[in-house]
Amino acid sequence: MQKNDIISLLEGYKNGELTQEEVLNKLVYLPYKDLQFAKLDYHRGIRVGYPEVIYCEGKELEHLKKIVEDMLKLDKNILATRVSKEAYRAICEVTDNLIYSEVARICVINPKDIKKEGLVAVVTGGTADIKVAEEAAITLETFGNNVDRIYDVGVAGIHRLFNNLERIRKANVVVAVAGMEGALASVVAGLVDVPVIAVPTSVGYGANFNGLSALLTMLNSCAAGVSVVNIDNGFGAGYIASLINKRVAEGVE
Amino acid sequence: MQKNDIISLLEGYKNGELTQEEVLNKLVYLPYKDLQFAKLDYHRGIRVGYPEVIYCEGKELEHLKKIVEDMLKLDKNILATRVSKEAYRAICEVTDNLIYSEVARICVINPKDIKKEGLVAVVTGGTADIKVAEEAAITLETFGNNVDRIYDVGVAGIHRLFNNLERIRKANVVVAVAGMEGALASVVAGLVDVPVIAVPTSVGYGANFNGLSALLTMLNSCAAGVSVVNIDNGFGAGYIASLINKRVAEGVE
Amino acid sequence: MQKNDIISLLEGYKNGELTQEEVLNKLVYLPYKDLQFAKLDYHRGIRVGYPEVIYCEGKELEHLKKIVEDMLKLDKNILATRVSKEAYRAICEVTDNLIYSEVARICVINPKDIKKEGLVAVVTGGTADIKVAEEAAITLETFGNNVDRIYDVGVAGIHRLFNNLERIRKANVVVAVAGMEGALASVVAGLVDVPVIAVPTSVGYGANFNGLSALLTMLNSCAAGVSVVNIDNGFGAGYIASLINKRVAEGVE
Amino acid sequence: MQKNDIISLLEGYKNGELTQEEVLNKLVYLPYKDLQFAKLDYHRGIRVGYPEVIYCEGKELEHLKKIVEDMLKLDKNILATRVSKEAYRAICEVTDNLIYSEVARICVINPKDIKKEGLVAVVTGGTADIKVAEEAAITLETFGNNVDRIYDVGVAGIHRLFNNLERIRKANVVVAVAGMEGALASVVAGLVDVPVIAVPTSVGYGANFNGLSALLTMLNSCAAGVSVVNIDNGFGAGYIASLINKRVAEGVE
Amino acid sequence: MQKNDIISLLEGYKNGELTQEEVLNKLVYLPYKDLQFAKLDYHRGIRVGYPEVIYCEGKELEHLKKIVEDMLKLDKNILATRVSKEAYRAICEVTDNLIYSEVARICVINPKDIKKEGLVAVVTGGTADIKVAEEAAITLETFGNNVDRIYDVGVAGIHRLFNNLERIRKANVVVAVAGMEGALASVVAGLVDVPVIAVPTSVGYGANFNGLSALLTMLNSCAAGVSVVNIDNGFGAGYIASLINKRVAEGVE
Amino acid sequence: MQKNDIISLLEGYKNGELTQEEVLNKLVYLPYKDLQFAKLDYHRGIRVGYPEVIYCEGKELEHLKKIVEDMLKLDKNILATRVSKEAYRAICEVTDNLIYSEVARICVINPKDIKKEGLVAVVTGGTADIKVAEEAAITLETFGNNVDRIYDVGVAGIHRLFNNLERIRKANVVVAVAGMEGALASVVAGLVDVPVIAVPTSVGYGANFNGLSALLTMLNSCAAGVSVVNIDNGFGAGYIASLINKRVAEGVE
Amino acid sequence: MQKNDIISLLEGYKNGELTQEEVLNKLVYLPYKDLQFAKLDYHRGIRVGYPEVIYCEGKELEHLKKIVEDMLKLDKNILATRVSKEAYRAICEVTDNLIYSEVARICVINPKDIKKEGLVAVVTGGTADIKVAEEAAITLETFGNNVDRIYDVGVAGIHRLFNNLERIRKANVVVAVAGMEGALASVVAGLVDVPVIAVPTSVGYGANFNGLSALLTMLNSCAAGVSVVNIDNGFGAGYIASLINKRVAEGVE
Amino acid sequence: MQKNDIISLLEGYKNGELTQEEVLNKLVYLPYKDLQFAKLDYHRGIRVGYPEVIYCEGKELEHLKKIVEDMLKLDKNILATRVSKEAYRAICEVTDNLIYSEVARICVINPKDIKKEGLVAVVTGGTADIKVAEEAAITLETFGNNVDRIYDVGVAGIHRLFNNLERIRKANVVVAVAGMEGALASVVAGLVDVPVIAVPTSVGYGANFNGLSALLTMLNSCAAGVSVVNIDNGFGAGYIASLINKRVAEGVE
Repeated sequence: MQKNDIISLLEGYKNGELTQEEVLNKLVYLPYKDLQFAKLDYHRGIRVGYPEVIYCEGKELEHLKKIVEDMLKLDKNILATRVSKEAYRAICEVTDNLIYSEVARICVINPKDIKKEGLVAVVTGGTADIKVAEEAAITLETFGNNVDRIYDVGVAGIHRLFNNLERIRKANVVVAVAGMEGALASVVAGLVDVPVIAVPTSVGYGANFNGLSALLTMLNSCAAGVSVVNIDNGFGAGYIASLINKRVAEGVE
Repeated sequence: MQKNDIISLLEGYKNGELTQEEVLNKLVYLPYKDLQFAKLDYHRGIRVGYPEVIYCEGKELEHLKKIVEDMLKLDKNILATRVSKEAYRAICEVTDNLIYSEVARICVINPKDIKKEGLVAVVTGGTADIKVAEEAAITLETFGNNVDRIYDVGVAGIHRLFNNLERIRKANVVVAVAGMEGALASVVAGLVDVPVIAVPTSVGYGANFNGLSALLTMLNSCAAGVSVVNIDNGFGAGYIASLINKRVAEGVE
Repeated sequence: MQKNDIISLLEGYKNGELTQEEVLNKLVYLPYKDLQFAKLDYHRGIRVGYPEVIYCEGKELEHLKKIVEDMLKLDKNILATRVSKEAYRAICEVTDNLIYSEVARICVINPKDIKKEGLVAVVTGGTADIKVAEEAAITLETFGNNVDRIYDVGVAGIHRLFNNLERIRKANVVVAVAGMEGALASVVAGLVDVPVIAVPTSVGYGANFNGLSALLTMLNSCAAGVSVVNIDNGFGAGYIASLINKRVAEGVE
Repeated sequence: MQKNDIISLLEGYKNGELTQEEVLNKLVYLPYKDLQFAKLDYHRGIRVGYPEVIYCEGKELEHLKKIVEDMLKLDKNILATRVSKEAYRAICEVTDNLIYSEVARICVINPKDIKKEGLVAVVTGGTADIKVAEEAAITLETFGNNVDRIYDVGVAGIHRLFNNLERIRKANVVVAVAGMEGALASVVAGLVDVPVIAVPTSVGYGANFNGLSALLTMLNSCAAGVSVVNIDNGFGAGYIASLINKRVAEGVE
Repeated sequence: MQKNDIISLLEGYKNGELTQEEVLNKLVYLPYKDLQFAKLDYHRGIRVGYPEVIYCEGKELEHLKKIVEDMLKLDKNILATRVSKEAYRAICEVTDNLIYSEVARICVINPKDIKKEGLVAVVTGGTADIKVAEEAAITLETFGNNVDRIYDVGVAGIHRLFNNLERIRKANVVVAVAGMEGALASVVAGLVDVPVIAVPTSVGYGANFNGLSALLTMLNSCAAGVSVVNIDNGFGAGYIASLINKRVAEGVE
Repeated sequence: MQKNDIISLLEGYKNGELTQEEVLNKLVYLPYKDLQFAKLDYHRGIRVGYPEVIYCEGKELEHLKKIVEDMLKLDKNILATRVSKEAYRAICEVTDNLIYSEVARICVINPKDIKKEGLVAVVTGGTADIKVAEEAAITLETFGNNVDRIYDVGVAGIHRLFNNLERIRKANVVVAVAGMEGALASVVAGLVDVPVIAVPTSVGYGANFNGLSALLTMLNSCAAGVSVVNIDNGFGAGYIASLINKRVAEGVE
Repeated sequence: MQKNDIISLLEGYKNGELTQEEVLNKLVYLPYKDLQFAKLDYHRGIRVGYPEVIYCEGKELEHLKKIVEDMLKLDKNILATRVSKEAYRAICEVTDNLIYSEVARICVINPKDIKKEGLVAVVTGGTADIKVAEEAAITLETFGNNVDRIYDVGVAGIHRLFNNLERIRKANVVVAVAGMEGALASVVAGLVDVPVIAVPTSVGYGANFNGLSALLTMLNSCAAGVSVVNIDNGFGAGYIASLINKRVAEGVE
Repeated sequence: MQKNDIISLLEGYKNGELTQEEVLNKLVYLPYKDLQFAKLDYHRGIRVGYPEVIYCEGKELEHLKKIVEDMLKLDKNILATRVSKEAYRAICEVTDNLIYSEVARICVINPKDIKKEGLVAVVTGGTADIKVAEEAAITLETFGNNVDRIYDVGVAGIHRLFNNLERIRKANVVVAVAGMEGALASVVAGLVDVPVIAVPTSVGYGANFNGLSALLTMLNSCAAGVSVVNIDNGFGAGYIASLINKRVAEGVE
């Protein structure tokens, strides 16, 4: 489309329909529009069928329904995150072709068959971290990654982690989800040679300060190989883990 | 001494030298004085030869020298903590009967032979935590506890910790010293059945916030059996570990 | 069980059913499994009847009921903490053999007669701290410790504390629970020669910052002999106090 | 002076030298000038010989010397606070009629005989708090208050405090100076019926966070009767304590 | 009562009913009991009819009713603070002889005629600070102080403050209540020569951090003569202001 | 009015009805009253029809209704901010001549035709920031400024911002509203030569800490030309932007 | 220059020297380059002689000298900020055509005569804030603004501020610089109808937390019309004040 | 080695030299030792020549020299980080076969030729961030990654970033290093489809709080695809970027 705009300009100029002045004026501000086009060209999503994403929290229901309606026209699969039950019911009024995970608060709308590549391990310290882990895991699957869920293997009973080290080592990336003192990420990074994306959760109480404790633990990991996303940000962890895993699975671009 | 004061009062009253009014007036305010006496009577230190303790940081050198001189009259061993090199030289002007640990910044003045009881394990995450650990260890030894030093066994290479679990299990208390993300205390408490006194250290940088990161980690330990002292407070950890270990070693009072 | 696995391997190898290669492969990854076994062997709980523990906060009710059902098969007593009324009602659907403390939010399920040893004093600054103190006290009793409750003896009326010093001195450990400015732990540690496990509570308002004030006070205690658990963590304080008290009561292992 | 200005305006208007317009214009902006005058009239300092005060920290030495020179023309006594040794030497170049307290970092310049009234007790938790306490005490004396210094009576050895309660009870105000956990202020306020001005100090380390710990403790005092000034602000505590004590000593205005 | 206990001991010893040993043993632990007695003797409240105080927040209703019932036996007036509507209704079940201020969340139970002395000015920055100011004002009145309420005179329209300076100058103490940026306390202290007890309130939003902003402003007041109580602590401000005002009004003890 | 008071004083003095003493006494305290008058004279609002403003949050409904009733007597337009639905219904009981924006929580009561001047661009990072942006935009319009709304142009899709740079460059001031990481303000200030008033919003979660993240980002902008108002403070941003825009539009005073 | 590049492309295409493909490829990535050009075109600095700016803090001296050398080739005046004495000496090795303000730590290199427009008032609370105020004032002057310096008019002696209100009212913008409690900005904004750019300074101690106290005060100003820059950021305040003042002085663009 | 130990045990048991009991006892504690062996087997470093790493900060010089001496025996290349000049001189006493980067504070000791794979882009916002970026870049090179350095492309002049987007898009990972407001990471992630490892730096002042500002910005990135390491942690960023890049370059394991 935009490419065509430039071609039209060029041709209009060549055949005398447009003056140099007119062409120049349009080209000077074109960059900003082209930026989008350029970016899209490089965006793997376009080529391989990445879903559209809607962050639902704070959106009014009428607004949300309208966005979903618009997106459905693209005939793509859509990943909606932070979907409350109310938001889920609102989306249902627009379409019934959707899968809802209440625990992960995620909706996959207009779900398509996606070829899954590579492997990402999603591990949690406790059972209360699972809701954040599932946000990561479903994000990963919807973006086309194989996921191995390894839950409740925190350091309070560290043998549970050891029993699963082989599974973790097979992954291209680990998403390590933990609250309370958040030591899981350090311990995993000390044991495997795989990049670890750490997700602190707000699970805990008192001097946990809504996840600050786990966040600081993970940022200060004495074992190298850990980087961290925001507290409870399962989607963010899934997204960057997908970028990494697919790049490995597909080889160098 | 004070006991004698009360006896004098009682006898003076009995033999008519003091009126009831006079005795009453003295006794009403006696409590505050008696408190000291009462407390000392119950203080195990008096009976078993606990050392005197001087916290040197912030004390002027002339002041410090005078305190040491006074204490030497008691013919007891003295534990001086947070002793800078300048403070050490100042103390040397008063006496040369002392042992100085530069790394732990501790002086044992007028050292006595102390019978050591029980066992406390002092473990550290890294080598940079050793100066805090030594403050704990020397405090423990000076107070009459056997100490097993197990250094540099942090979670970045967790097998080092596992190689030493048997030694740790033999102790009555563990003092776990760690900076950075401070996961050591949780991991140890998840593996052994011994009370863990955790000491966060200010080792690290950035979002470590001078030890806040390790402090929060330890307070939020997902494994039970951990309690925490102030950042870099090796003496405090040693002191409470000594209270526990000696109570175990000596049996119920 | 696991011991038997190893024995089978050894015998299978000896009598030629297994090759050296096969045995070796299994043994290399055995460690992680053995860890559990080894740990259990050293876990006093196995031998002396420690209860199972469930932390209920954040668990879904269906999940919780299933966990309780499973545990009941072991015929052991179970300690459930942070039990809301809803959680309590859910557990009641599984069994009616339980005792519920609403104030401590604790359930003792399938309660057994437990021999109580030693003595732990649980003291609070005010009446609003009692709910945290009860979590500690009931945890202690369920783990087999004698408990002396001494409530509402905070420094606003310090004579109340003094009237109770003799009771406190008889304990092997003190659990000191206080909110607001949290001075209780320092004052107690300055008066008795017993290890103090301090529990800051979120009681108070304003610059109390949900317990941060009391937490910092306790960490900075000018009196030695204090270590600290997380804000409102009555269970954690009870658990480590139990480790200490029973070790004293039972003598050196 | 300013009063005279208004009188001139009024008379000028009455005898026709000034138009109503001219007088009105001047009066409209007079308020801002009158404010100073009004305030001074009510300022007890003017009548009873309060000293001038210079806060030296951050002032350049040449600037400081010039301020002192100017003030000396008033023939009043001058209180200079936060005086470093360098600042002291600079002031000495201007005048040698001064008294310097190195520990309190205070200079009384051109000292006058001051009638001292009432009584303020200045108490500290430890010896390291004395430098802040002396700033308060010398401020109080220079402003004309009797001071009773009661140092090193912190809660680590609470009997020391009790031995001095009678002295504290005789004061009209208590200035309570303490670092570390800062429990002194609460304990004093729980024992005496005298207003307590609490001064947190930055004495301590680790989770003391440069005095934040003591500040929060004092703000959250469970005993009523405590109010708090800034960390290490001995001058501020002395100033408000002087306002209170002198008002008591002089009776209702 | 307790005085009599000591007299009995002395007489019992004199007439041979008690041995010296027996008397000595009792006297050694007497202090703690005497402390209460001693303290009460010095407590002005006992002599002049200070009310009993109940802090209701966090107390269970049944508990609260029982406390009120007990206190009513003393035939004294009672000040209950932080009284929710539920708590108010609970107290009404015990007695209907009470006055409730919903805005201040204060109950005066069994109200007595109190002679009011001196003068305390209570000023607020805005109308939203009034609920905290009323807690201070009613506390002051119930403790026998005259109160001048000067509300909504914050620095956003500073002329309102100036119009009221003369009223403020007549007081022995000012209680300055302000939220948002909390500049009121500094400005008042810069204009009057009266001690200022500053109360930060949680009024505001965003970087106000529930009152932290106003708290820090007040602690850092560039005008001397300000000390600070906890955020929203109207009772605490009223209590210390009462201590000061009554001491001025009654003259030196 | 007040001008007249002074004139009366002057004339009364001139014609002998008032003594110099009487006039002087009144004038000395006049300043505080005059301040208001002086200020109003300079207040552009008086001359050009600025609305009255009511901040509704925390005001009781009865109180609010009374304030609105009083203000209506002035026959001016009134801007009510932070208007909940309940507050809106309360205002409706007083008058039905009003416009309510639910999203901005703003009421314009007794709306007047206002001449709009200059141009202010209001930009947001996301759609969830719109409610704060609308508070700014409606404030600006009610104060007589033209507003260009440019919403949802945050840095996650920076081409959207570039497509709108020309519109932004036409404004005299930019109000940049953003939550999460708040990078919008820096990026805008790096691209345009217009003063930027940045409004951090509390949109986001986790380590966003209710807007602290965006606040710090904006304060630390590496691009010059940014200043910041409180978190979510759309009104404050609109107010200062109006001061700037109108001053530009009207030329130097 | 760049314009010419596009013209060349167009002409090359028209006359057949370049294929459509070749032109298209170059135009797609042109935007990024054009951005600079577009921006410069709109940058008032280019037209009216704004200085180049170097932020010196953290730059190595050799690096700094090289940057200055390069800039000197442009024959423009250069504003260097955060210039330590060492940095000043380094710059002197490159050129001696410069003016250095030690107090503001600013160098104006290759100074040019600048036409000054409009008026900005720079006010400070105390004398210790002057170094930050001078950074703002010299920045303003170097960018071509008239500056009125009004220093040491903080709220501790508020009459000093009132004596200067008329001067402040004449300005198009106020830069209000204050440390400690930072109330100056609120008070000024409550008294004048001019936009206030507030600069918190790190002046103070204790709970000032290096300027955090003043920062929060200013962000929470109860008077509207205040926006805030970073702590000690005199340059940033001068820069945005210049944008505003010049826009007013030059009229709408 | 350890494998052989197990084989010996097995054979000893088979041929009757060891009893089942003896073998069992050894195997039970083997796990901890085997862990190391197992881990090493899976550690790519062993096979492909990763360097040994020494973190020098806080290590005593004598200690450091000894560690280097020991490591040199392995004939591997060694990466020493946080190397002060003093530490560098100490290492020089042990060997002169080393390369020192003063700006990155990194030493490559006993440097080997390393095959470099893939591509990592290291970008910085300003020049002051380069020292952290170089720590990342040299770490990456020493671990065998190709590095493209793109410095000083922060959002204050965003066209500089756009000019370099094509280079950034060619990388498998981006390390984005920025201080002040740290917006670089969000902007990059919004423009490219490559995982971004963000490194906040402590560059800046005031409300930057030593890097906290940039850290929070990066954690709250509104663009997905960003994860974060500790403040100033160039090594950590390089390490995880290497894990990712090499995995892509080498393909799935």
